[in-house]
Amino acid sequence: MMRGARVASIMAEGLDYAGSGVDIDLEGNAVGALVGALSRSVRKPGSPGAPVDLPGGFGGLVEFGDNYLALATDGVGSKLSIATKLNQWAGVGIDCMAMNVNDLLCVGAEPIAFVDYIAVPKPDPEIHAALGASLAEACRRARVTLAGGETASLPGIVTELDLSGTALGWLAKGSEITGANLKQGDVLIGMPSSGVHSNGYSLVRNVVSHCGASWEDAAPFEVNEERIERFNSGPVTLGEVFLNPTRIYCDPVVDLIQDGPCPTEQIHGICHVTGGGLSNLLRLHDTLGWNISNPLPILAEFNWIQEQGNVTDREMHRTFNMGCGMIIAVDSSVAQTVCSWLSQRMDGCAIIGEVVDNGHKVTHSNPDVVFEHY
Amino acid sequence: MMRGARVASIMAEGLDYAGSGVDIDLEGNAVGALVGALSRSVRKPGSPGAPVDLPGGFGGLVEFGDNYLALATDGVGSKLSIATKLNQWAGVGIDCMAMNVNDLLCVGAEPIAFVDYIAVPKPDPEIHAALGASLAEACRRARVTLAGGETASLPGIVTELDLSGTALGWLAKGSEITGANLKQGDVLIGMPSSGVHSNGYSLVRNVVSHCGASWEDAAPFEVNEERIERFNSGPVTLGEVFLNPTRIYCDPVVDLIQDGPCPTEQIHGICHVTGGGLSNLLRLHDTLGWNISNPLPILAEFNWIQEQGNVTDREMHRTFNMGCGMIIAVDSSVAQTVCSWLSQRMDGCAIIGEVVDNGHKVTHSNPDVVFEHY
Repeated sequence: MMRGARVASIMAEGLDYAGSGVDIDLEGNAVGALVGALSRSVRKPGSPGAPVDLPGGFGGLVEFGDNYLALATDGVGSKLSIATKLNQWAGVGIDCMAMNVNDLLCVGAEPIAFVDYIAVPKPDPEIHAALGASLAEACRRARVTLAGGETASLPGIVTELDLSGTALGWLAKGSEITGANLKQGDVLIGMPSSGVHSNGYSLVRNVVSHCGASWEDAAPFEVNEERIERFNSGPVTLGEVFLNPTRIYCDPVVDLIQDGPCPTEQIHGICHVTGGGLSNLLRLHDTLGWNISNPLPILAEFNWIQEQGNVTDREMHRTFNMGCGMIIAVDSSVAQTVCSWLSQRMDGCAIIGEVVDNGHKVTHSNPDVVFEHY
Repeated sequence: MMRGARVASIMAEGLDYAGSGVDIDLEGNAVGALVGALSRSVRKPGSPGAPVDLPGGFGGLVEFGDNYLALATDGVGSKLSIATKLNQWAGVGIDCMAMNVNDLLCVGAEPIAFVDYIAVPKPDPEIHAALGASLAEACRRARVTLAGGETASLPGIVTELDLSGTALGWLAKGSEITGANLKQGDVLIGMPSSGVHSNGYSLVRNVVSHCGASWEDAAPFEVNEERIERFNSGPVTLGEVFLNPTRIYCDPVVDLIQDGPCPTEQIHGICHVTGGGLSNLLRLHDTLGWNISNPLPILAEFNWIQEQGNVTDREMHRTFNMGCGMIIAVDSSVAQTVCSWLSQRMDGCAIIGEVVDNGHKVTHSNPDVVFEHY
């Protein structure tokens, strides 16, 4: 989990995230212990590298002259185990890039460079060639330079390939998007996800194993083939659905910020919907609420996971993006303009709700989906 | 291994690096396959994030206005397995920082920020608190801001804790130190290491296991206790010697570059002595040679490893730093001044040799230590 994020436990009927082998409380305690041991930076305010504290809790900013530089670091997580099982690597470099650059977008930063870290029990030139191709495609989609990387052979430490990375972004001082300008009536624009992205895979893998399915099975639900990056011929498989690479939102979000149809000040908040689902919205403001009155369509794989795992609506919306990977809050006066502009660049963007002043919570057209904590 | 580095196989009598479980050829092929699959950056020359190609092959630079930004990413490697066995974490955050920031110094960059990535089978608050303290101390020594981090629970992928990180540095355009100004007669100043640092641990662990020693044993050689960061009372143990944290050279190298006793142009090359030992020098210039006529004293643990493992002198100098972790090549006119200046800030710095024009090789007062390839 990204540090700085507060962590809540997830509980639900049926399968839930903790029951899937991820102990969110224990993770929270561990991260809290680590953060508690840190101390204030030695870099003085105004000097390159001095830490920047912004509202909204985005932790990765440092000063650099008239600009801020931003770092984000994250890994692909247990989605990699599916890639390992199927020996399919085309998507995971994109996942790794996406998890990092999408985080940078949320503060209004433009991602510019990336480095990867690969830990393997034993290097394999074929896998590395596939990862290189995946990272190259990821750089193209995110419009960044691959500035380096490290491959570590750690036979005593890793049993399967682990892939993580770090993205570097920048923004001009004063142009940061923090949620500080959010207000009642701001309009929420949802941007479609490409599937599960890279969160919640302990639950996904548990459900698939629980119901006796194989990653090579044809998906037992209707799936729009156009949104799946295929690596098999024939019917779309569960493996293809659940390895579908995470969507990278740099294009069009960077363009919206830098050259969009409205002044940047009218963009009041950007939320990357990761682990925690819609509860991520609560990080953007301390008191305002979020009403998702018209959510984007739920993708078929989420409904299937829910049915197979007997997972509650609330738990689903707290673990997964459910079809909406990024939410942009804009002033209501520019909402239609921005939504049309985004829709021309990414099919399926739509107005999904608004900012409300009825308490610090997320509400939803489904009354069971309510979050008061992230 | 850091990508961009060419990789040579290491062969020797007795124990050698390949025999210790690291197949350098296979790693080289894997990295080559990955790099071969990459493509040119989409970021245009002159724009933030455009890649910068400098002589000397340092790969992590991108443009940023009048400056360059530099990224370095690396992990602690199998030294971590000793930390896991002894449950001693105070040093590994420093190792992780050191491997990255010391690489940034080599191009003349000032490290300013760092992010860590921790992968664990299961989070443990006590271990994370110790890692947090270690990273805090590392930030203090490297004078950087910890700008974020990620803790991933990956029970199916890692069996022990893995720790890696990424450092961000900067330098003004035109102030890069690349080796381009190196010339015959330049003087080499060696800076002492704190021990094995974070390379060659497959061999270290193999030797210790081979000779039936335990990490808890008192070191069976004389060791200057002052250079060991103790976590036991009583005699210095093998565990303490081989977990001694990697030296961080930011102080005094950043000060030498920014405020030192000579113009930056007189500093012609900086070499971080990592895996590959003295052969790392060969990366700094395509034709000149390096004569180490007066090496720094060999630390006791290196002699012990060599005896126990029956390792050749050449193999030792190709795997380990042997007591010298950083080498700075300066114009001969400022060599004494710079050496005195550095010695006042770090005990044990000394002139160890010079740049020669007798072919692209490293020679040494020990005639068995000759390198023509890295």
